[in-house]
Amino acid sequence: MGAGRLEAFSDAVMAVIMTLLAFELAAPDGPTREAIYASLSSLFLYVLCFVFIAIYWNNHHQLLRVTDRISGAVMWANMTLLFSLSLIPVATEWVGNAYQEDFDPGPAVAFLGIVFLAAAISFTWLARALLRANGPDSQLARALQHSLKEPVSIGLYTLGVVTAIALNTSSSHVGVYVSYACYATVSIIWLIPDRRLTRHDEHGEHAR
Amino acid sequence: MGAGRLEAFSDAVMAVIMTLLAFELAAPDGPTREAIYASLSSLFLYVLCFVFIAIYWNNHHQLLRVTDRISGAVMWANMTLLFSLSLIPVATEWVGNAYQEDFDPGPAVAFLGIVFLAAAISFTWLARALLRANGPDSQLARALQHSLKEPVSIGLYTLGVVTAIALNTSSSHVGVYVSYACYATVSIIWLIPDRRLTRHDEHGEHAR
Amino acid sequence: MGAGRLEAFSDAVMAVIMTLLAFELAAPDGPTREAIYASLSSLFLYVLCFVFIAIYWNNHHQLLRVTDRISGAVMWANMTLLFSLSLIPVATEWVGNAYQEDFDPGPAVAFLGIVFLAAAISFTWLARALLRANGPDSQLARALQHSLKEPVSIGLYTLGVVTAIALNTSSSHVGVYVSYACYATVSIIWLIPDRRLTRHDEHGEHAR
Amino acid sequence: MGAGRLEAFSDAVMAVIMTLLAFELAAPDGPTREAIYASLSSLFLYVLCFVFIAIYWNNHHQLLRVTDRISGAVMWANMTLLFSLSLIPVATEWVGNAYQEDFDPGPAVAFLGIVFLAAAISFTWLARALLRANGPDSQLARALQHSLKEPVSIGLYTLGVVTAIALNTSSSHVGVYVSYACYATVSIIWLIPDRRLTRHDEHGEHAR
Repeated sequence: MGAGRLEAFSDAVMAVIMTLLAFELAAPDGPTREAIYASLSSLFLYVLCFVFIAIYWNNHHQLLRVTDRISGAVMWANMTLLFSLSLIPVATEWVGNAYQEDFDPGPAVAFLGIVFLAAAISFTWLARALLRANGPDSQLARALQHSLKEPVSIGLYTLGVVTAIALNTSSSHVGVYVSYACYATVSIIWLIPDRRLTRHDEHGEHAR
Repeated sequence: MGAGRLEAFSDAVMAVIMTLLAFELAAPDGPTREAIYASLSSLFLYVLCFVFIAIYWNNHHQLLRVTDRISGAVMWANMTLLFSLSLIPVATEWVGNAYQEDFDPGPAVAFLGIVFLAAAISFTWLARALLRANGPDSQLARALQHSLKEPVSIGLYTLGVVTAIALNTSSSHVGVYVSYACYATVSIIWLIPDRRLTRHDEHGEHAR
Repeated sequence: MGAGRLEAFSDAVMAVIMTLLAFELAAPDGPTREAIYASLSSLFLYVLCFVFIAIYWNNHHQLLRVTDRISGAVMWANMTLLFSLSLIPVATEWVGNAYQEDFDPGPAVAFLGIVFLAAAISFTWLARALLRANGPDSQLARALQHSLKEPVSIGLYTLGVVTAIALNTSSSHVGVYVSYACYATVSIIWLIPDRRLTRHDEHGEHAR
Repeated sequence: MGAGRLEAFSDAVMAVIMTLLAFELAAPDGPTREAIYASLSSLFLYVLCFVFIAIYWNNHHQLLRVTDRISGAVMWANMTLLFSLSLIPVATEWVGNAYQEDFDPGPAVAFLGIVFLAAAISFTWLARALLRANGPDSQLARALQHSLKEPVSIGLYTLGVVTAIALNTSSSHVGVYVSYACYATVSIIWLIPDRRLTRHDEHGEHAR
């Protein structure tokens, strides 16, 4: 029952963020192909963010599943993670504004990357705080050794942010597409099941 | 406790979708009969979607109640189901736009059907993933044999999508009404209690 | 664990309705007394609806606390209750529109009463369905005997609806104030702790 | 299982309030520095309110963790707390309106302080009600002795409200900044871990 309420609260926040992102989607303003195309770019952005939050939910779940005790630091690391995730709707709204009102999407896409980066760093902090609360001999400690995903993600998000801002000077949108590619690549990396936390129970309950 | 957090997260997402659908309802813009009639069509659409989500909640509940273990595939099948359901508000908004701004509702009603279809397919995938995780001798495996509801639903949704798009060429709204009839028929089929998952405990806790 | 998921889902729906009602409140449009007064009527309506939902949450909690088993009928009675509650935001929006755009609030206040009535009837249905599922010798059965609150509530809500509609012919707002008084009276009746469900554990956990 | 549903409901309400606050944030209306600066003040307000609610969630969690039984008074004290918290979005919207439409933010900032004050008083009431329900010998009773944080918080919030209103006569915004400083100071006081409720389990699960 230790981490139960922390999980329940995080679940509720992530569920509401996901649903509000979908709610923010603007319905096409007509039955024509053009109206539908205009809505498709926001749908693509929604898919990207949905997958992003789904991965965090999954990793959060796997992390807390092998946790015996939590601390004040865990509570605040978790709140920072939720705060970062809660900024996703305003970031996507900014990106959407850029396409709708036809201004440079660079800063908005960079901000989206900063939000993703903040979430990644908070998650790393959460894992460390859980590790400190549970001790070096815990099941969690063994599971968290030797991971490359976190540094690679943080590197790719940083690259995406830099590219989106560097584009600001030019008039082409190449930088923004490179940023999207960086963000999407991180999601793909994480969609590959995380062996670290599932290795210890080989026959059965992967990712439970 | 295995599937507990998956259930809690799904509950939260479905609850928020339901409530946002109700929140989206436009209140009548006056005390007259005409103002009330203008709001009634969106109320009808809300009832249709509320019942749709209530049925999914119920089936989801029945499915996970007899589940012992979950897997990564179960997690992603469930996320796909939630993603499909999260598109219902934007679909109903599109349909509402069509009636309010008086453009052809065909593509919007077809999109609603595609969303319903995606949810139905995800649910079938979820059931299969749970079956694979729990083995052919599980209580779930016995319960899921010989079901006709899934293929009939998928057929009716497909028919509804095709009808709504075929209408696109004509100027009458007959195709859209046929689509509504298809979607409503599927809901009625599912409102009949699902014997498969309740058969094993005859005296008492049906649908628990 | 029987009714656990039903409770969790109902909690989430009621929590989101409450919060959306507060979110719907229009902030004053200036620092003046007039701007604040204009917002006060919607605040009053919010308090009325918040208390209404809080009472339902409390009664729902007390009812399910003494429940051993649930059925399909319980599930659908509960969904009908949640559907009724989910219409509160659109009803208050209609009432708010009436005051803001200065049209006759009669039909809107009557609709609010119909929503309250629908919730009251669903709750009675829910209690009956739970009784049927738990048998005449259950703790619940003894607790539910001889209650006057339900019929009195249903009577007062009906009176409120009739008064709000009867006002429609006159140009004064007296009928609407009588309706508000009826709705508020029901809430006051329910704020008096429900002895029926707490009688059986005298020393300690009332209303738990 | 006693306080379980009370916790679950409170979690859901607090999670939705937090997420709606973030949803309310207006995205910058362009890629320029000015557009970003215009959004920064609402982001600052969001951070203040997020931390405020996070502290309440944490304290609520610590309080109910050492609770054995709840009562009707506890239920209503908790509802009053949730009601107070639910007014935060409309208060921040009013403050935001003041900056956007350039009117005196004094009354709005005072209202925000009144909402914070109402939450603080409700929380004190909740703690007292829990104490009465659990008896003078309970773990909770020992934990709640000799606290200075509550009276200091209530004093600082009152000071903030008075300062924001006193500013109303002058044309400078000094009073409002003093109010913000008061509100932020209370948050900082509470960010220091609450020793009272964690003292009894020294080796391990602080703040759990």
